[in-house]
Amino acid sequence: MTARPANTHQARLLHLLRDGGPNSRAQLGDQVDLSRSKLAVEVDRLLDTGLVVADGLAASRGGRRSHNIRLAPTLRFLGVDIGATSVDVAVTNAELEVFGHLTQPMDVREGPVAVFEQVLAMAAKLRDSGVADALDGAGIGVPGPVRFPEGIPVAPPIMPGWDGFPVREALSQELGCPVMVDNDVNLMAMGEQHAGVARSVQDFLCVKIGTGIGCGIVVGGQVYRGTTGSAGDIGHIQVEPEGRPCACGNRGCLEAYFGGSALARDAEAAAVNGQSPELAAILESAGRLAASDVASAAAAGDPAALDLIRAGGARTGQVIAGLVSFFNPGLVVIGGGVTGLGHTLLASIRTQVYRQSLPLATGNLPIVLGELGSAAGVIGAARLISDHLFSPA
Amino acid sequence: MTARPANTHQARLLHLLRDGGPNSRAQLGDQVDLSRSKLAVEVDRLLDTGLVVADGLAASRGGRRSHNIRLAPTLRFLGVDIGATSVDVAVTNAELEVFGHLTQPMDVREGPVAVFEQVLAMAAKLRDSGVADALDGAGIGVPGPVRFPEGIPVAPPIMPGWDGFPVREALSQELGCPVMVDNDVNLMAMGEQHAGVARSVQDFLCVKIGTGIGCGIVVGGQVYRGTTGSAGDIGHIQVEPEGRPCACGNRGCLEAYFGGSALARDAEAAAVNGQSPELAAILESAGRLAASDVASAAAAGDPAALDLIRAGGARTGQVIAGLVSFFNPGLVVIGGGVTGLGHTLLASIRTQVYRQSLPLATGNLPIVLGELGSAAGVIGAARLISDHLFSPA
Repeated sequence: MTARPANTHQARLLHLLRDGGPNSRAQLGDQVDLSRSKLAVEVDRLLDTGLVVADGLAASRGGRRSHNIRLAPTLRFLGVDIGATSVDVAVTNAELEVFGHLTQPMDVREGPVAVFEQVLAMAAKLRDSGVADALDGAGIGVPGPVRFPEGIPVAPPIMPGWDGFPVREALSQELGCPVMVDNDVNLMAMGEQHAGVARSVQDFLCVKIGTGIGCGIVVGGQVYRGTTGSAGDIGHIQVEPEGRPCACGNRGCLEAYFGGSALARDAEAAAVNGQSPELAAILESAGRLAASDVASAAAAGDPAALDLIRAGGARTGQVIAGLVSFFNPGLVVIGGGVTGLGHTLLASIRTQVYRQSLPLATGNLPIVLGELGSAAGVIGAARLISDHLFSPA
Repeated sequence: MTARPANTHQARLLHLLRDGGPNSRAQLGDQVDLSRSKLAVEVDRLLDTGLVVADGLAASRGGRRSHNIRLAPTLRFLGVDIGATSVDVAVTNAELEVFGHLTQPMDVREGPVAVFEQVLAMAAKLRDSGVADALDGAGIGVPGPVRFPEGIPVAPPIMPGWDGFPVREALSQELGCPVMVDNDVNLMAMGEQHAGVARSVQDFLCVKIGTGIGCGIVVGGQVYRGTTGSAGDIGHIQVEPEGRPCACGNRGCLEAYFGGSALARDAEAAAVNGQSPELAAILESAGRLAASDVASAAAAGDPAALDLIRAGGARTGQVIAGLVSFFNPGLVVIGGGVTGLGHTLLASIRTQVYRQSLPLATGNLPIVLGELGSAAGVIGAARLISDHLFSPA
């Protein structure tokens, strides 16, 4: 795919077809506020580019039947979501429906060369499975701040070896298609906005709790990235003056209490101290504990594991309460690996936010778990590249 | 003035003339990306409305000399900034230059009827002084959340009697011109953006410290008001778990430590405890202390007053540090009555933010005092109504 829309009308039509699926010329005309003749011109030009194809006749609205159009069904996007400990790769069509999705364990600290080798192998596997002939574009999420739109990670705390690596340029060469790169949390927000719980919400926050803790910010339907691309980096907001030392060099940061490694450390302490038979049993068989072990112990009703989740949820809720007062969002989505902790975590976060934020800001504020799980990131990644390709060059 | 721009091109031209002053057709054409003939059509239509007038010939750019145009010099806006304890009223031209500005003490708790009587008297006084024949529009700022664009205060904590009062409608009838209403902090941000320190900055925060503590949020050059209009209400973010009780019913809120009445109370304690001879002297002669007395005592070098400012600045800085990590702004402006506390306050805020926020977010982040003082609110108010009138109806 090399064609791009020539103007904002065409871009708007492409976005409508992506988000709403096949549609009749008549109904698209209602939505874009173009005269019938101007609409016909723009649609014909889009048909010429091959981005859009005819799709039969629409149901009658009373007069002559209108022609349906849709995005070319052969278009394929690659969505890649690089986490701290795993990587997701998926292939979607232009309407961002997932046609194939692979997840593999991976350590982001191995650096970009090793990680991209794995990503390319996974992409090849998906192509071999027949879901894509060629790729028209790829979106990539990485677990750290990104200089956008250049697509270069900047000083990512949990990604040694990635600082300044030209991810966009390197992957674009390897894959032979346009690439866009963003923070993983922003992609999760875009995924939940496209196909999940945030559909139709204009202003919302998406908090991802995993190895790190970050927040996607959506303003007026668009991801807000901040002046230097680090907006939403809430893991190092202080929750305890003079509190625990954090890997960032400060004290009392949220991640020092509820990031993945803090939670694993607290779980090991509970196992060793004899507070948690469940965690002690896992520690004995596995030799070490991870954050996900706290989730399974809690699911088994282990009181110490449940306490760890409640305490972490309260601290997270304390931070979110401040953000809700500040930002007055219409929705807060909680996602990420730790959502295995589920409703105990959610209840604890809600209690803090509804207690501490202003009533005017919480009067009509749903706080919900993300719906898409690990698909949110890859769908968001596909949306990122489609936003790019469906805009005038 | 009843005319409004007929389309977005005309609106853009009006905004350019407001923000940049008189300009030649040629240079405006460069900025709006319209063909010469289309530009001529839109400018002629604006001349017909009377919003814009011819202003002589421009300097030559090499070819035929272009004609200058400008906003009609007879246009007048009223800017009203209602604080907790004082009110500012000003008259501006359409370029938002202040032609007359009055400040009077006032108690917002007297309720809308008494306050508006005073505002109308001040406006009449300004008109009598000859700076305005008729008013083309008025912008009003109030110290609490506002349902925008209806212009109705909602559950304002320090404004008993104002909840649900139809400010926009009532004042529009009294003044006989269109009116828009917003939170005072948003107007301060717009004022500093138009004529002050935030000129040319797209994403910034404007923190107003006075009787209350609030924050104006500007995203992409536009004020962000949140889902229910309460965005920026940071005075009740918790700074101390289980801390001091706050008037809002919670504990440990920022305003419980550094709002106007908390500061006055702490100052009285310092005076009575014998920690501060300066404050004790003021208390003896005046019978009570206000936040502004802390400023004068600090200016006289009183160590207890300086300590109060440093402690309050540190708590404010703690909150701002979190917001900077979250929002990654390009600038933080500190303003409001307490900026009489000046550089001691600023230094204390800066120390906290630069220590606690992520390096990526603070790497190029100026934290500065507002430049316009009490003019920020009234200029912001004039900008608010001009934004409304200079948009298609």
